[in-house]
Amino acid sequence: MTARPTWSGPPLGRMAVIGVGQIGGSVALAARAAGAVSEVVGFGRSAETLRRARELGIIDRAASSVAEAAGGAAVVVLATPVRSLAALGAELAPAVARDALVFDVGSVKVPAVRALEPVLPAGIFVACHPVAGTERVGPEAASATLFQGRPCIVCPTPATDATTLANVCRLWAATGGDVVKMDAAVHDRVLGACSHLPHVAAYALAAAVAGADGEVLGQIGRLMTTSLRDTTRVAASSPAMWRDIFLDNRGEVLPLVDRLLAEMQALRGAIAAGDSARLEALLAAAKEGRDRLIPG
Amino acid sequence: MTARPTWSGPPLGRMAVIGVGQIGGSVALAARAAGAVSEVVGFGRSAETLRRARELGIIDRAASSVAEAAGGAAVVVLATPVRSLAALGAELAPAVARDALVFDVGSVKVPAVRALEPVLPAGIFVACHPVAGTERVGPEAASATLFQGRPCIVCPTPATDATTLANVCRLWAATGGDVVKMDAAVHDRVLGACSHLPHVAAYALAAAVAGADGEVLGQIGRLMTTSLRDTTRVAASSPAMWRDIFLDNRGEVLPLVDRLLAEMQALRGAIAAGDSARLEALLAAAKEGRDRLIPG
Repeated sequence: MTARPTWSGPPLGRMAVIGVGQIGGSVALAARAAGAVSEVVGFGRSAETLRRARELGIIDRAASSVAEAAGGAAVVVLATPVRSLAALGAELAPAVARDALVFDVGSVKVPAVRALEPVLPAGIFVACHPVAGTERVGPEAASATLFQGRPCIVCPTPATDATTLANVCRLWAATGGDVVKMDAAVHDRVLGACSHLPHVAAYALAAAVAGADGEVLGQIGRLMTTSLRDTTRVAASSPAMWRDIFLDNRGEVLPLVDRLLAEMQALRGAIAAGDSARLEALLAAAKEGRDRLIPG
Repeated sequence: MTARPTWSGPPLGRMAVIGVGQIGGSVALAARAAGAVSEVVGFGRSAETLRRARELGIIDRAASSVAEAAGGAAVVVLATPVRSLAALGAELAPAVARDALVFDVGSVKVPAVRALEPVLPAGIFVACHPVAGTERVGPEAASATLFQGRPCIVCPTPATDATTLANVCRLWAATGGDVVKMDAAVHDRVLGACSHLPHVAAYALAAAVAGADGEVLGQIGRLMTTSLRDTTRVAASSPAMWRDIFLDNRGEVLPLVDRLLAEMQALRGAIAAGDSARLEALLAAAKEGRDRLIPG
Protein backbone atom coordinates (compact mmCIF):
# COMPACT_ATOMS: atom_id res chain seq x y z
CA MET A 1 0.00 0.00 0.00
CA THR A 2 2.56 2.58 1.10
CA ALA A 3 6.14 2.84 -0.12
CA ARG A 4 8.58 0.56 1.65
CA PRO A 5 9.78 2.47 4.71
CA THR A 6 13.51 3.08 4.73
CA TRP A 7 16.16 4.49 6.96
CA SER A 8 17.88 7.69 5.90
CA GLY A 9 21.53 8.12 6.74
CA PRO A 10 24.11 5.55 7.83
CA PRO A 11 22.95 2.53 9.87
CA LEU A 12 23.07 2.92 13.63
CA GLY A 13 25.43 -0.04 13.84
CA ARG A 14 25.04 -3.45 15.39
CA MET A 15 21.71 -4.53 16.89
CA ALA A 16 21.54 -6.98 19.78
CA VAL A 17 18.25 -8.81 20.21
CA ILE A 18 17.70 -10.45 23.59
CA GLY A 19 14.84 -12.91 23.12
CA VAL A 20 14.36 -13.86 19.47
CA GLY A 21 10.62 -14.62 19.37
CA GLN A 22 7.93 -13.15 17.16
CA ILE A 23 8.41 -9.55 18.29
CA GLY A 24 12.18 -9.50 18.81
CA GLY A 25 12.66 -11.35 15.54
CA SER A 26 10.37 -8.97 13.69
CA VAL A 27 12.23 -5.91 15.03
CA ALA A 28 15.47 -7.42 13.72
CA LEU A 29 14.01 -8.29 10.31
CA ALA A 30 12.30 -4.93 9.86
CA ALA A 31 15.30 -2.88 11.05
CA ARG A 32 17.65 -4.74 8.77
CA ALA A 33 15.26 -4.55 5.79
CA ALA A 34 15.05 -0.79 6.26
CA GLY A 35 18.82 -0.42 6.49
CA ALA A 36 18.70 0.89 10.06
CA VAL A 37 21.25 -1.60 11.42
CA SER A 38 24.32 -3.23 9.94
CA GLU A 39 24.41 -6.52 11.83
CA VAL A 40 22.16 -8.45 14.21
CA VAL A 41 23.41 -10.50 17.15
CA GLY A 42 20.96 -12.64 19.08
CA PHE A 43 20.82 -14.02 22.58
CA GLY A 44 18.20 -16.22 24.19
CA ARG A 45 17.77 -19.02 26.67
CA SER A 46 17.29 -21.69 24.04
CA ALA A 47 20.13 -22.70 21.71
CA GLU A 48 17.54 -24.29 19.43
CA THR A 49 15.61 -21.02 19.04
CA LEU A 50 18.84 -19.16 18.26
CA ARG A 51 19.75 -21.77 15.66
CA ARG A 52 16.35 -21.39 13.95
CA ALA A 53 16.65 -17.60 14.09
CA ARG A 54 20.00 -17.85 12.32
CA GLU A 55 18.57 -20.21 9.70
CA LEU A 56 15.66 -17.84 9.10
CA GLY A 57 18.08 -14.95 8.53
CA ILE A 58 16.83 -13.06 11.59
CA ILE A 59 20.21 -12.91 13.31
CA ASP A 60 23.72 -13.07 11.87
CA ARG A 61 25.14 -14.84 14.88
CA ALA A 62 24.28 -15.93 18.39
CA ALA A 63 26.05 -14.57 21.45
CA SER A 64 26.67 -16.72 24.48
CA SER A 65 25.65 -14.11 27.06
CA VAL A 66 23.72 -10.87 27.40
CA ALA A 67 26.98 -9.02 28.03
CA GLU A 68 28.57 -10.46 24.90
CA ALA A 69 25.51 -9.57 22.78
CA ALA A 70 25.34 -6.03 24.14
CA GLY A 71 29.05 -5.23 24.04
CA GLY A 72 29.64 -2.95 21.06
CA ALA A 73 25.96 -2.87 20.11
CA ALA A 74 24.44 0.46 19.05
CA VAL A 75 20.91 -0.83 19.68
CA VAL A 76 19.82 -3.39 22.28
CA VAL A 77 16.32 -4.80 21.95
CA LEU A 78 14.90 -6.48 25.05
CA ALA A 79 12.18 -8.82 23.83
CA THR A 80 11.75 -11.00 26.90
CA PRO A 81 8.99 -11.02 29.52
CA VAL A 82 8.65 -7.86 31.64
CA ARG A 83 9.56 -9.75 34.81
CA SER A 84 12.89 -10.77 33.34
CA LEU A 85 13.93 -7.16 32.75
CA ALA A 86 15.40 -6.47 36.20
CA ALA A 87 17.78 -9.42 35.93
CA LEU A 88 18.61 -8.47 32.36
CA GLY A 89 19.38 -4.93 33.45
CA ALA A 90 21.95 -6.16 35.94
CA GLU A 91 23.75 -8.16 33.22
CA LEU A 92 23.42 -5.37 30.71
CA ALA A 93 24.54 -2.41 32.81
CA PRO A 94 28.30 -3.12 32.90
CA ALA A 95 28.43 -4.18 29.23
CA VAL A 96 26.32 -1.70 27.29
CA ALA A 97 27.80 1.41 25.66
CA ARG A 98 26.90 4.69 27.34
CA ASP A 99 25.56 6.02 24.04
CA ALA A 100 23.67 2.92 22.97
CA LEU A 101 19.91 2.80 22.55
CA VAL A 102 18.19 0.20 24.73
CA PHE A 103 14.48 -0.48 24.44
CA ASP A 104 12.04 -3.20 25.42
CA VAL A 105 8.89 -4.23 23.55
CA GLY A 106 6.65 -5.53 26.34
CA SER A 107 2.95 -4.96 26.93
CA VAL A 108 3.25 -3.19 30.31
CA LYS A 109 5.43 -0.10 30.58
CA VAL A 110 5.62 1.25 34.15
CA PRO A 111 7.38 -1.90 35.46
CA ALA A 112 9.80 -1.77 32.50
CA VAL A 113 10.79 1.81 33.26
CA ARG A 114 11.16 0.99 36.97
CA ALA A 115 13.31 -2.07 36.27
CA LEU A 116 15.69 -0.54 33.77
CA GLU A 117 15.95 3.24 34.01
CA PRO A 118 17.70 3.26 37.40
CA VAL A 119 20.32 0.62 36.53
CA LEU A 120 21.33 1.46 32.95
CA PRO A 121 23.54 4.41 31.89
CA ALA A 122 21.58 7.67 32.09
CA GLY A 123 18.95 8.33 29.42
CA ILE A 124 19.59 5.33 27.13
CA PHE A 125 16.56 3.20 28.00
CA VAL A 126 13.23 3.86 26.28
CA ALA A 127 10.18 1.75 27.09
CA CYS A 128 8.39 0.78 23.86
CA HIS A 129 5.35 -1.25 22.91
CA PRO A 130 4.60 -2.09 19.30
CA VAL A 131 0.89 -2.95 19.27
CA ALA A 132 1.29 -5.79 16.83
CA GLY A 133 1.66 -9.53 16.82
CA THR A 134 -0.53 -12.55 16.41
CA GLU A 135 -1.37 -15.61 18.48
CA ARG A 136 1.71 -17.30 16.95
CA VAL A 137 5.00 -17.51 18.82
CA GLY A 138 8.69 -18.05 18.13
CA PRO A 139 11.10 -16.88 15.42
CA GLU A 140 9.01 -18.63 12.72
CA ALA A 141 6.24 -16.12 13.45
CA ALA A 142 8.56 -13.12 12.93
CA SER A 143 8.05 -10.90 9.90
CA ALA A 144 9.72 -7.76 8.51
CA THR A 145 6.23 -6.30 7.93
CA LEU A 146 4.69 -7.06 11.33
CA PHE A 147 4.71 -3.40 12.41
CA GLN A 148 3.53 -1.82 9.18
CA GLY A 149 0.64 0.50 9.90
CA ARG A 150 0.55 -0.59 13.55
CA PRO A 151 0.87 1.82 16.48
CA CYS A 152 4.37 1.64 17.95
CA ILE A 153 4.13 3.27 21.35
CA VAL A 154 7.21 5.03 22.75
CA CYS A 155 7.20 6.06 26.41
CA PRO A 156 9.89 8.64 27.16
CA THR A 157 10.49 9.90 30.70
CA PRO A 158 12.05 13.19 31.83
CA ALA A 159 15.36 11.28 32.04
CA THR A 160 15.32 10.07 28.41
CA ASP A 161 18.17 11.40 26.25
CA ALA A 162 16.86 13.48 23.34
CA THR A 163 19.04 11.84 20.66
CA THR A 164 18.20 8.37 21.95
CA LEU A 165 14.51 9.21 21.81
CA ALA A 166 14.83 10.56 18.28
CA ASN A 167 16.64 7.40 17.19
CA VAL A 168 14.08 5.01 18.62
CA CYS A 169 11.27 6.96 16.97
CA ARG A 170 13.13 6.90 13.63
CA LEU A 171 13.68 3.17 14.07
CA TRP A 172 9.98 2.41 14.62
CA ALA A 173 9.06 4.66 11.71
CA ALA A 174 11.57 2.74 9.56
CA THR A 175 9.75 -0.53 10.39
CA GLY A 176 6.59 1.02 8.96
CA GLY A 177 5.10 1.60 12.40
CA ASP A 178 2.95 4.57 13.37
CA VAL A 179 4.92 6.15 16.23
CA VAL A 180 2.77 7.19 19.21
CA LYS A 181 4.42 8.90 22.20
CA MET A 182 2.69 8.26 25.49
CA ASP A 183 3.47 8.49 29.18
CA ALA A 184 4.16 4.99 30.59
CA ALA A 185 1.42 5.24 33.21
CA VAL A 186 -1.11 6.39 30.61
CA HIS A 187 -0.01 3.51 28.39
CA ASP A 188 -0.75 0.98 31.11
CA ARG A 189 -4.22 2.43 31.72
CA VAL A 190 -5.05 2.61 28.02
CA LEU A 191 -3.80 -0.87 27.15
CA GLY A 192 -5.46 -2.20 30.29
CA ALA A 193 -8.78 -1.06 28.86
CA CYS A 194 -8.37 -1.82 25.16
CA SER A 195 -6.22 -4.96 25.27
CA HIS A 196 -5.83 -6.54 28.71
CA LEU A 197 -9.53 -6.37 29.65
CA PRO A 198 -10.69 -7.85 26.30
CA HIS A 199 -8.28 -10.72 26.95
CA VAL A 200 -9.75 -11.32 30.43
CA ALA A 201 -13.24 -11.34 28.87
CA ALA A 202 -12.21 -13.70 26.08
CA TYR A 203 -10.48 -16.18 28.41
CA ALA A 204 -13.43 -16.17 30.83
CA LEU A 205 -15.92 -16.63 27.98
CA ALA A 206 -13.90 -19.47 26.44
CA ALA A 207 -13.77 -21.20 29.83
CA ALA A 208 -17.51 -20.71 30.42
CA VAL A 209 -18.50 -22.11 27.03
CA ALA A 210 -16.00 -24.97 27.23
CA GLY A 211 -17.66 -25.94 30.51
CA ALA A 212 -20.89 -26.95 28.75
CA ASP A 213 -21.91 -30.61 28.56
CA GLY A 214 -20.76 -32.88 25.76
CA GLU A 215 -23.97 -32.74 23.71
CA VAL A 216 -23.84 -28.94 23.63
CA LEU A 217 -20.11 -28.88 22.84
CA GLY A 218 -20.60 -31.25 19.91
CA GLN A 219 -23.27 -29.03 18.38
CA ILE A 220 -21.22 -25.86 18.97
CA GLY A 221 -18.34 -27.34 17.00
CA ARG A 222 -20.76 -28.04 14.17
CA LEU A 223 -22.37 -24.59 14.13
CA MET A 224 -19.16 -22.53 14.20
CA THR A 225 -20.92 -19.30 15.13
CA THR A 226 -18.89 -16.24 14.20
CA SER A 227 -19.88 -14.51 17.44
CA LEU A 228 -18.15 -17.17 19.56
CA ARG A 229 -15.16 -17.33 17.21
CA ASP A 230 -14.50 -13.59 17.20
CA THR A 231 -15.33 -12.96 20.84
CA THR A 232 -12.90 -15.64 22.02
CA ARG A 233 -10.22 -15.25 19.33
CA VAL A 234 -7.62 -13.77 21.66
CA ALA A 235 -8.11 -16.57 24.19
CA ALA A 236 -5.96 -18.63 21.80
CA SER A 237 -3.00 -16.47 22.93
CA SER A 238 -0.16 -17.73 25.10
CA PRO A 239 -1.33 -18.37 28.69
CA ALA A 240 2.19 -17.73 30.07
CA MET A 241 2.45 -14.38 28.32
CA TRP A 242 -0.98 -13.21 29.43
CA ARG A 243 -0.47 -14.47 32.98
CA ASP A 244 2.50 -12.09 33.11
CA ILE A 245 0.68 -9.16 31.50
CA PHE A 246 -2.29 -9.46 33.87
CA LEU A 247 0.02 -9.65 36.90
CA ASP A 248 2.41 -6.92 35.70
CA ASN A 249 -0.49 -4.54 35.12
CA ARG A 250 -2.75 -5.71 37.87
CA GLY A 251 -3.12 -2.25 39.40
CA GLU A 252 -4.94 -1.19 36.24
CA VAL A 253 -6.49 -4.53 35.31
CA LEU A 254 -8.30 -5.24 38.58
CA PRO A 255 -10.50 -2.11 38.62
CA LEU A 256 -11.29 -2.73 34.94
CA VAL A 257 -12.31 -6.32 35.65
CA ASP A 258 -14.52 -5.00 38.45
CA ARG A 259 -16.17 -2.60 36.03
CA LEU A 260 -16.73 -5.45 33.57
CA LEU A 261 -18.22 -7.62 36.31
CA ALA A 262 -20.53 -4.75 37.29
CA GLU A 263 -21.70 -4.25 33.68
CA MET A 264 -22.35 -7.96 33.36
CA GLN A 265 -24.25 -8.05 36.66
CA ALA A 266 -26.38 -5.15 35.44
CA LEU A 267 -27.27 -7.06 32.25
CA ARG A 268 -27.94 -10.18 34.30
CA GLY A 269 -30.21 -8.26 36.65
CA ALA A 270 -32.27 -6.81 33.81
CA ILE A 271 -32.60 -10.23 32.13
CA ALA A 272 -33.56 -11.95 35.39
CA ALA A 273 -36.14 -9.26 36.17
CA GLY A 274 -37.54 -9.39 32.64
CA ASP A 275 -36.99 -5.62 32.61
CA SER A 276 -37.23 -5.05 28.89
CA ALA A 277 -36.79 -1.26 28.96
CA ARG A 278 -33.78 -1.37 31.27
CA LEU A 279 -32.17 -4.17 29.29
CA GLU A 280 -32.59 -2.34 25.99
CA ALA A 281 -31.17 0.86 27.53
CA LEU A 282 -28.08 -1.02 28.76
CA LEU A 283 -27.54 -2.69 25.39
CA ALA A 284 -28.08 0.55 23.49
CA ALA A 285 -25.56 2.38 25.71
CA ALA A 286 -23.02 -0.40 25.18
CA LYS A 287 -23.54 -0.35 21.43
CA GLU A 288 -23.27 3.44 21.36
CA GLY A 289 -20.01 3.29 23.30
CA ARG A 290 -18.66 0.64 20.96
CA ASP A 291 -19.71 2.54 17.83
CA ARG A 292 -17.98 5.69 19.18
CA LEU A 293 -14.73 3.82 19.93
CA ILE A 294 -14.63 1.73 16.77
CA PRO A 295 -16.52 3.50 14.00
CA GLY A 296 -17.56 1.70 10.83
CA MET B 1 -16.92 -22.02 -4.48
CA THR B 2 -19.70 -24.59 -4.78
CA ALA B 3 -22.21 -24.87 -7.61
CA ARG B 4 -25.24 -22.62 -7.29
CA PRO B 5 -27.80 -24.55 -5.25
CA THR B 6 -31.04 -25.18 -7.12
CA TRP B 7 -34.45 -26.60 -6.54
CA SER B 8 -35.41 -29.81 -8.31
CA GLY B 9 -39.00 -30.25 -9.41
CA PRO B 10 -41.78 -27.69 -9.72
CA PRO B 11 -41.81 -24.67 -7.40
CA LEU B 12 -43.77 -25.05 -4.17
CA GLY B 13 -45.96 -22.11 -5.18
CA ARG B 14 -46.40 -18.68 -3.65
CA MET B 15 -44.25 -17.61 -0.69
CA ALA B 16 -45.55 -15.15 1.89
CA VAL B 17 -42.91 -13.33 3.91
CA ILE B 18 -44.12 -11.69 7.11
CA GLY B 19 -41.41 -9.20 8.14
CA VAL B 20 -39.20 -8.26 5.22
CA GLY B 21 -35.90 -7.48 7.00
CA GLN B 22 -32.45 -8.95 6.42
CA ILE B 23 -33.43 -12.56 7.15
CA GLY B 24 -36.96 -12.59 5.72
CA GLY B 25 -35.74 -10.75 2.64
CA SER B 26 -32.82 -13.12 2.18
CA VAL B 27 -35.10 -16.19 2.42
CA ALA B 28 -37.26 -14.69 -0.33
CA LEU B 29 -34.30 -13.80 -2.56
CA ALA B 30 -32.58 -17.17 -2.09
CA ALA B 31 -35.77 -19.22 -2.55
CA ARG B 32 -36.68 -17.35 -5.72
CA ALA B 33 -33.13 -17.54 -7.11
CA ALA B 34 -33.17 -21.31 -6.57
CA GLY B 35 -36.55 -21.69 -8.26
CA ALA B 36 -38.22 -23.00 -5.11
CA VAL B 37 -41.11 -20.52 -5.20
CA SER B 38 -43.05 -18.91 -8.01
CA GLU B 39 -44.08 -15.62 -6.44
CA VAL B 40 -43.33 -13.68 -3.23
CA VAL B 41 -45.88 -11.64 -1.31
CA GLY B 42 -44.71 -9.50 1.59
CA PHE B 43 -46.33 -8.12 4.70
CA GLY B 44 -44.86 -5.92 7.39
CA ARG B 45 -45.74 -3.12 9.78
CA SER B 46 -44.01 -0.44 7.72
CA ALA B 47 -45.33 0.54 4.28
CA GLU B 48 -41.96 2.16 3.59
CA THR B 49 -40.08 -1.12 4.22
CA LEU B 50 -42.49 -2.99 1.93
CA ARG B 51 -42.00 -0.35 -0.77
CA ARG B 52 -38.20 -0.72 -0.56
CA ALA B 53 -38.51 -4.52 -0.58
CA ARG B 54 -40.54 -4.28 -3.80
CA GLU B 55 -37.99 -1.91 -5.36
CA LEU B 56 -35.17 -4.28 -4.42
CA GLY B 57 -36.98 -7.16 -6.14
CA ILE B 58 -37.41 -9.05 -2.87
CA ILE B 59 -41.21 -9.22 -3.06
CA ASP B 60 -43.54 -9.06 -6.05
CA ARG B 61 -46.27 -7.30 -4.12
CA ALA B 62 -47.27 -6.21 -0.65
CA ALA B 63 -50.31 -7.58 1.11
CA SER B 64 -52.39 -5.42 3.44
CA SER B 65 -52.76 -8.07 6.19
CA VAL B 66 -51.26 -11.30 7.44
CA ALA B 67 -54.38 -13.15 6.37
CA GLU B 68 -54.21 -11.71 2.86
CA ALA B 69 -50.52 -12.60 2.54
CA ALA B 70 -51.01 -16.13 3.83
CA GLY B 71 -54.19 -16.93 1.87
CA GLY B 72 -53.21 -19.22 -1.00
CA ALA B 73 -49.53 -19.29 0.01
CA ALA B 74 -47.69 -22.61 -0.16
CA VAL B 75 -44.94 -21.30 2.14
CA VAL B 76 -45.29 -18.75 4.92
CA VAL B 77 -42.08 -17.32 6.39
CA LEU B 78 -42.42 -15.64 9.78
CA ALA B 79 -39.44 -13.29 10.08
CA THR B 80 -40.61 -11.12 12.94
CA PRO B 81 -39.51 -11.08 16.63
CA VAL B 82 -40.28 -14.24 18.62
CA ARG B 83 -42.66 -12.37 20.90
CA SER B 84 -44.82 -11.34 17.96
CA LEU B 85 -45.41 -14.96 16.95
CA ALA B 86 -48.40 -15.67 19.22
CA ALA B 87 -50.35 -12.72 17.80
CA LEU B 88 -49.28 -13.68 14.27
CA GLY B 89 -50.46 -17.23 14.86
CA ALA B 90 -53.95 -16.01 15.72
CA GLU B 91 -54.16 -14.02 12.48
CA LEU B 92 -52.62 -16.80 10.46
CA ALA B 93 -54.64 -19.77 11.73
CA PRO B 94 -57.93 -19.07 9.93
CA ALA B 95 -56.23 -17.99 6.68
CA VAL B 96 -53.43 -20.47 6.05
CA ALA B 97 -53.91 -23.58 3.89
CA ARG B 98 -53.94 -26.86 5.83
CA ASP B 99 -51.15 -28.20 3.61
CA ALA B 100 -48.96 -25.07 3.63
CA LEU B 101 -45.47 -24.94 5.12
CA VAL B 102 -45.08 -22.33 7.87
CA PHE B 103 -41.72 -21.63 9.47
CA ASP B 104 -40.11 -18.92 11.53
CA VAL B 105 -36.44 -17.86 11.48
CA GLY B 106 -35.89 -16.54 15.01
CA SER B 107 -32.98 -17.12 17.37
CA VAL B 108 -34.93 -18.89 20.16
CA LYS B 109 -36.94 -21.97 19.32
CA VAL B 110 -38.87 -23.34 22.30
CA PRO B 111 -41.07 -20.20 22.57
CA ALA B 112 -41.68 -20.33 18.79
CA VAL B 113 -42.92 -23.93 18.96
CA ARG B 114 -45.07 -23.10 22.01
CA ALA B 115 -46.60 -20.06 20.32
CA LEU B 116 -47.44 -21.61 16.96
CA GLU B 117 -47.76 -25.37 17.04
CA PRO B 118 -50.98 -25.40 19.12
CA VAL B 119 -52.81 -22.77 17.06
CA LEU B 120 -51.90 -23.61 13.45
CA PRO B 121 -53.26 -26.56 11.42
CA ALA B 122 -51.65 -29.83 12.58
CA GLY B 123 -48.06 -30.47 11.57
CA ILE B 124 -47.49 -27.48 9.26
CA PHE B 125 -45.28 -25.33 11.52
CA VAL B 126 -41.54 -25.98 11.69
CA ALA B 127 -39.30 -23.84 13.91
CA CYS B 128 -36.15 -22.88 12.00
CA HIS B 129 -33.03 -20.84 12.68
CA PRO B 130 -30.60 -20.00 9.92
CA VAL B 131 -27.37 -19.13 11.75
CA ALA B 132 -26.51 -16.28 9.43
CA GLY B 133 -26.83 -12.55 9.25
CA THR B 134 -24.74 -9.53 9.97
CA GLU B 135 -25.07 -6.46 12.20
CA ARG B 136 -26.98 -4.79 9.34
CA VAL B 137 -30.77 -4.57 9.32
CA GLY B 138 -33.62 -4.07 6.87
CA PRO B 139 -34.34 -5.23 3.32
CA GLU B 140 -31.20 -3.45 2.02
CA ALA B 141 -29.16 -5.97 4.04
CA ALA B 142 -30.89 -8.96 2.42
CA SER B 143 -28.96 -11.18 0.05
CA ALA B 144 -29.67 -14.31 -1.97
CA THR B 145 -26.36 -15.76 -0.74
CA LEU B 146 -26.71 -15.02 2.98
CA PHE B 147 -27.27 -18.68 3.91
CA GLN B 148 -24.63 -20.25 1.69
CA GLY B 149 -22.48 -22.58 3.76
CA ARG B 150 -24.23 -21.48 6.96
CA PRO B 151 -25.96 -23.90 9.34
CA CYS B 152 -29.73 -23.72 8.87
CA ILE B 153 -31.22 -25.36 11.94
CA VAL B 154 -34.56 -27.12 11.62
CA CYS B 155 -36.39 -28.16 14.80
CA PRO B 156 -39.09 -30.76 14.13
CA THR B 157 -41.36 -32.01 16.90
CA PRO B 158 -43.27 -35.30 17.10
CA ALA B 159 -46.23 -33.41 15.63
CA THR B 160 -44.40 -32.19 12.51
CA ASP B 161 -45.79 -33.52 9.22
CA ALA B 162 -43.19 -35.59 7.36
CA THR B 163 -43.77 -33.98 3.94
CA THR B 164 -43.68 -30.50 5.47
CA LEU B 165 -40.41 -31.32 7.19
CA ALA B 166 -38.93 -32.68 3.96
CA ASN B 167 -39.97 -29.52 2.12
CA VAL B 168 -38.46 -27.11 4.63
CA CYS B 169 -35.19 -29.06 4.59
CA ARG B 170 -35.16 -29.00 0.77
CA LEU B 171 -35.86 -25.27 0.87
CA TRP B 172 -32.93 -24.50 3.19
CA ALA B 173 -30.67 -26.74 1.13
CA ALA B 174 -31.77 -24.83 -1.98
CA THR B 175 -30.62 -21.55 -0.35
CA GLY B 176 -27.16 -23.10 -0.01
CA GLY B 177 -27.57 -23.68 3.71
CA ASP B 178 -26.21 -26.64 5.63
CA VAL B 179 -29.33 -28.24 7.11
CA VAL B 180 -28.96 -29.27 10.77
CA LYS B 181 -31.86 -30.98 12.54
CA MET B 182 -31.99 -30.33 16.26
CA ASP B 183 -34.51 -30.56 19.08
CA ALA B 184 -35.83 -27.07 19.94
CA ALA B 185 -34.76 -27.31 23.58
CA VAL B 186 -31.27 -28.46 22.60
CA HIS B 187 -31.11 -25.58 20.11
CA ASP B 188 -31.83 -23.04 22.84
CA ARG B 189 -29.13 -24.49 25.10
CA VAL B 190 -26.57 -24.66 22.30
CA LEU B 191 -27.24 -21.19 20.92
CA GLY B 192 -27.34 -19.82 24.45
CA ALA B 193 -23.75 -20.98 24.87
CA CYS B 194 -22.29 -20.22 21.46
CA SER B 195 -24.19 -17.09 20.48
CA HIS B 196 -26.24 -15.51 23.27
CA LEU B 197 -23.50 -15.68 25.93
CA PRO B 198 -20.84 -14.19 23.60
CA HIS B 199 -23.25 -11.32 22.97
CA VAL B 200 -23.70 -10.73 26.71
CA ALA B 201 -19.90 -10.70 27.09
CA ALA B 202 -19.42 -8.35 24.16
CA TYR B 203 -22.06 -5.86 25.32
CA ALA B 204 -20.70 -5.86 28.88
CA LEU B 205 -17.14 -5.39 27.65
CA ALA B 206 -18.12 -2.57 25.30
CA ALA B 207 -19.91 -0.83 28.18
CA ALA B 208 -16.97 -1.32 30.55
CA VAL B 209 -14.42 0.07 28.10
CA ALA B 210 -16.68 2.93 27.02
CA GLY B 211 -16.86 3.93 30.70
CA ALA B 212 -13.18 4.91 30.77
CA ASP B 213 -12.20 8.56 31.10
CA GLY B 214 -11.79 10.85 28.11
CA GLU B 215 -8.00 10.68 27.94
CA VAL B 216 -8.07 6.88 27.80
CA LEU B 217 -10.92 6.83 25.27
CA GLY B 218 -9.03 9.20 22.96
CA GLN B 219 -5.96 6.98 22.98
CA ILE B 220 -8.04 3.81 22.46
CA GLY B 221 -9.55 5.30 19.32
CA ARG B 222 -6.04 6.00 18.10
CA LEU B 223 -4.64 2.53 18.85
CA MET B 224 -7.46 0.46 17.30
CA THR B 225 -6.39 -2.75 18.98
CA THR B 226 -7.69 -5.79 17.17
CA SER B 227 -8.45 -7.53 20.47
CA LEU B 228 -11.00 -4.87 21.44
CA ARG B 229 -12.42 -4.70 17.92
CA ASP B 230 -13.00 -8.45 17.59
CA THR B 231 -14.08 -9.08 21.16
CA THR B 232 -16.79 -6.39 20.99
CA ARG B 233 -17.78 -6.78 17.31
CA VAL B 234 -21.18 -8.27 18.03
CA ALA B 235 -22.03 -5.47 20.48
CA ALA B 236 -22.72 -3.43 17.33
CA SER B 237 -25.83 -5.59 16.83
CA SER B 238 -29.38 -4.32 17.30
CA PRO B 239 -30.17 -3.69 21.01
CA ALA B 240 -33.89 -4.34 20.45
CA MET B 241 -33.24 -7.68 18.79
CA TRP B 242 -30.82 -8.85 21.48
CA ARG B 243 -33.04 -7.60 24.30
CA ASP B 244 -35.69 -9.97 22.93
CA ILE B 245 -33.31 -12.90 22.45
CA PHE B 246 -31.90 -12.59 25.99
CA LEU B 247 -35.41 -12.41 27.46
CA ASP B 248 -36.88 -15.15 25.22
CA ASN B 249 -34.07 -17.52 26.18
CA ARG B 250 -33.48 -16.34 29.70
CA GLY B 251 -33.91 -19.79 31.20
CA GLU B 252 -30.76 -20.86 29.36
CA VAL B 253 -28.96 -17.51 29.33
CA LEU B 254 -29.01 -16.80 33.07
CA PRO B 255 -27.11 -19.93 34.19
CA LEU B 256 -24.61 -19.32 31.40
CA VAL B 257 -24.07 -15.72 32.53
CA ASP B 258 -23.56 -17.04 36.05
CA ARG B 259 -20.92 -19.43 34.78
CA LEU B 260 -19.21 -16.60 32.91
CA LEU B 261 -19.28 -14.42 36.03
CA ALA B 262 -17.75 -17.28 38.03
CA GLU B 263 -14.95 -17.79 35.48
CA MET B 264 -14.23 -14.07 35.52
CA GLN B 265 -14.23 -14.00 39.33
CA ALA B 266 -11.77 -16.89 39.33
CA LEU B 267 -9.42 -14.99 37.01
CA ARG B 268 -9.85 -11.86 39.12
CA GLY B 269 -9.04 -13.78 42.28
CA ALA B 270 -5.85 -15.25 40.85
CA ILE B 271 -4.73 -11.83 39.56
CA ALA B 272 -5.51 -10.11 42.86
CA ALA B 273 -3.66 -12.79 44.83
CA GLY B 274 -0.70 -12.68 42.46
CA ASP B 275 -1.18 -16.44 42.16
CA SER B 276 0.88 -17.02 39.04
CA ALA B 277 0.47 -20.80 38.89
CA ARG B 278 -3.29 -20.69 39.41
CA LEU B 279 -3.69 -17.87 36.88
CA GLU B 280 -1.71 -19.71 34.23
CA ALA B 281 -3.70 -22.91 34.86
CA LEU B 282 -6.99 -21.02 34.38
CA LEU B 283 -5.78 -19.35 31.19
CA ALA B 284 -4.36 -22.61 29.82
CA ALA B 285 -7.65 -24.43 30.50
CA ALA B 286 -9.59 -21.64 28.77
CA LYS B 287 -7.27 -21.70 25.77
CA GLU B 288 -7.46 -25.48 25.57
CA GLY B 289 -11.27 -25.33 25.65
CA ARG B 290 -11.26 -22.70 22.93
CA ASP B 291 -8.81 -24.59 20.74
CA ARG B 292 -10.97 -27.71 21.05
CA LEU B 293 -14.16 -25.86 20.08
CA ILE B 294 -12.67 -23.77 17.29
CA PRO B 295 -9.65 -25.56 15.85
CA GLY B 296 -7.17 -23.74 13.64
